[in-house]
Amino acid sequence: MTKAPQSRDAFEARLRQIGAERYHDLHPFHDRLHGGQCTMEEVQAWVINRYYYQHSIPMKDAAFMSRVEDPDLRRAWRSRMEDHDGTADNEGGIRRWLRLAEAVGLDPDYVSTTEGVLPATKFAVDAYVRFVREKTLLEAVAASLTELFAPKIHANRIEGLLKNYAFADDSSLSYFRNRLKEAPKDVAFGLAWVLDHADTAEKQDVAARALIFKTDVLWSQLDALWGAYVEPRRIPPGAWQPGTGQLLRQAS
Amino acid sequence: MTKAPQSRDAFEARLRQIGAERYHDLHPFHDRLHGGQCTMEEVQAWVINRYYYQHSIPMKDAAFMSRVEDPDLRRAWRSRMEDHDGTADNEGGIRRWLRLAEAVGLDPDYVSTTEGVLPATKFAVDAYVRFVREKTLLEAVAASLTELFAPKIHANRIEGLLKNYAFADDSSLSYFRNRLKEAPKDVAFGLAWVLDHADTAEKQDVAARALIFKTDVLWSQLDALWGAYVEPRRIPPGAWQPGTGQLLRQAS
Repeated sequence: MTKAPQSRDAFEARLRQIGAERYHDLHPFHDRLHGGQCTMEEVQAWVINRYYYQHSIPMKDAAFMSRVEDPDLRRAWRSRMEDHDGTADNEGGIRRWLRLAEAVGLDPDYVSTTEGVLPATKFAVDAYVRFVREKTLLEAVAASLTELFAPKIHANRIEGLLKNYAFADDSSLSYFRNRLKEAPKDVAFGLAWVLDHADTAEKQDVAARALIFKTDVLWSQLDALWGAYVEPRRIPPGAWQPGTGQLLRQAS
Repeated sequence: MTKAPQSRDAFEARLRQIGAERYHDLHPFHDRLHGGQCTMEEVQAWVINRYYYQHSIPMKDAAFMSRVEDPDLRRAWRSRMEDHDGTADNEGGIRRWLRLAEAVGLDPDYVSTTEGVLPATKFAVDAYVRFVREKTLLEAVAASLTELFAPKIHANRIEGLLKNYAFADDSSLSYFRNRLKEAPKDVAFGLAWVLDHADTAEKQDVAARALIFKTDVLWSQLDALWGAYVEPRRIPPGAWQPGTGQLLRQAS
């Protein structure tokens, strides 16, 4: 006997519940960061490692569009690449992240090499890019729905960083302010698409699993960061060593 | 100007040096395990997570053979699948690992579902399978050369487990004893193949990076295990919870 699909509202509530239980705003690294308990080395490690995620997202979106036959869907999706890679009028999220890197004392040229990124960060983020390359379009869009839960964490982050760290100002935090504008339009589109296309119980289960997968991708990055740079602070072979990759501040 | 390749001996020494600096025998989890400081829960977590690696290795080897046009090379490689998946006369490494799982009090049917495996373990191991699927044959064979460094750790493990844990006996440790016989023939073949085929400086660099990648795959599994089950003992959402997945011991 075929299981009946959940109603649209019930299925949306199920997706939101996944965020309530598994989104990385629940990870203690974020309390530490936003509460001002992070050392500058920990902030730098976060910026270096999170850059790898930023740098991979447009590749993920390109992988998605490479598999979409519908021009309307590709057109709707393309703004995500513009948001990250930039346009004539918009520097884009990747450059904004490198501005944050510079503000925390790192050489943006070093950060953009992605050298020193934790292997565990690369494995997790690469798993996401490959997931989008290999799985169904429904799973790819469902995985992007962690953006549903992002505005709250970005607002908390802006407030917490501004309050607690000297490097924080409008310029260095512009990445997060822009995401507050960009994410809601993306996720409204993505959520409607998933609710429209997950029209059987089986597809709903598959979409929910895809969203869980994505929460794992985000969570495991913070676990790796914590283990390497907070506790037990065991930096794996080849990963960034505090004190390196920094801007040379010239005597003036 | 083209860089001259290293001599065969110098290149082999370079590969061995990678192991001396980055192989996971240097990770403190192994000291803890072999020295008898692990709790049974930690041993169980290790068995559950390491099973994901065991279960993926024959898929990795099949991915490799799927890209090999030379029947001789496929024939030489095929014994790896036999070693893991078994033959009429040999139960194979995967069943031996499940015997270990049973000896440490886990339900082998639970372990073989790979439910509860840490997402970070899956990301790392899946990265290895995909690496072998996507990269050159030279890189795939070079990545397998961590087996060069395995006999020492297996010998230490057998000795340490027998000395320190009641579950350890010839049956439960048969996986490791068999690997002591199997790994040297595999790695002698793989090493000779890499030394033969890495005949330019560029190929030598690529092969060395592949071996480094593989050491990262192994190391990051132990970092994830440590963070989840040793210190700070933060188990990620959805991962195995101690006290579950165990054999039901019936009152008799």
